[in-house]
Amino acid sequence: MQAIGRHVILEMWGCQNLESVETAERALREMVVALDVNLLDLRVYPFSPVGVTGIAIVSESHLVIHTWPEYGYAAVDLFTCGAVRDPQDAVNVLRRLFKPDRIGVMEINRGQMDLGEHTEVSTNTAPERARPRSRLARTPAYSA
Amino acid sequence: MQAIGRHVILEMWGCQNLESVETAERALREMVVALDVNLLDLRVYPFSPVGVTGIAIVSESHLVIHTWPEYGYAAVDLFTCGAVRDPQDAVNVLRRLFKPDRIGVMEINRGQMDLGEHTEVSTNTAPERARPRSRLARTPAYSA
Repeated sequence: MQAIGRHVILEMWGCQNLESVETAERALREMVVALDVNLLDLRVYPFSPVGVTGIAIVSESHLVIHTWPEYGYAAVDLFTCGAVRDPQDAVNVLRRLFKPDRIGVMEINRGQMDLGEHTEVSTNTAPERARPRSRLARTPAYSA
Repeated sequence: MQAIGRHVILEMWGCQNLESVETAERALREMVVALDVNLLDLRVYPFSPVGVTGIAIVSESHLVIHTWPEYGYAAVDLFTCGAVRDPQDAVNVLRRLFKPDRIGVMEINRGQMDLGEHTEVSTNTAPERARPRSRLARTPAYSA
C-alpha cells in the first residue's frame, strides 16, 4: 500500500510558551527547515484572552499549531507529501521551544492507494526528493 | 473523557472540480456557514501543474482542503472546538461540490483530558454555543 501524504498528529501537554505569537512563528519556521519543505505562506493569529493559531502553508501541504495556554495544551499537525526528512526532526523543534511534559504522536497515511489501480505514485516513506517536478511535492503556481 | 476539540479527517476519491480554486474557496465558505463557525481568514493556493490547497482559519480552529486532481483525490480536515453543528453538514457541502465516488471519514478527539485533573472543559459533543466567551471557541484578539 502506498500513500500520497503522511499526516503526523501531535498532542502536547504541560507546555510552556503557549501564549507567545513569536514562539509559534519560530516553531513553524524551524520545522519548515527541519523538514526541508518549501514555505509558501506563514501566518499566526493571536486569540483573546489567550491562545495562538499558527499555520505554515508549504508545497508539501501544511503545518499547523493551535495552543490552549489555560490547559498547557497544544495540538500540532504536520501534513506533508513528498518530504524526505523524518518528522522526528520537527518534533525535536517542538520539544525545544514548548518544553512539553509529554507528547502523544499518531501518524496517518493520507491518500492511501490500492496499487492495482494506481502505480505511478512513489512511496511516502522514501520519496525521491531529487525529482524537482515530483507530482507529490507540488510546485506553486506563483512565487510567494 | 472530555476533549478540547474534534478533528474530522476526510479522504475523498473519485472527485470532480479538484483543479478549481473557485470550488475550493466556495467549499470552505459554505462549510464555515454549515458549521456555524467564525471565519478569520481564508486563503486558496493553486499549484502547478495541478492541485489546490485551501485553508479557512476560524475561531474554532481550522478547515483545510488539499486536492490532487491527477488522482481524483482530496484530503480534507475539519478541526473545530466548541462548534455546535454536526460535521455531517460540512460533509454534505463537500459531496455536492466535489461529487466524490467515495468518502472515508475518521474522527479524532483532540486534547482529550482526564476529568480528574481538569473539570472545567465542556464536552465536545454538546458544547454550549450560547457562551459568547467560551474558552473553547476563542475570541480573536483582532478583527479580520
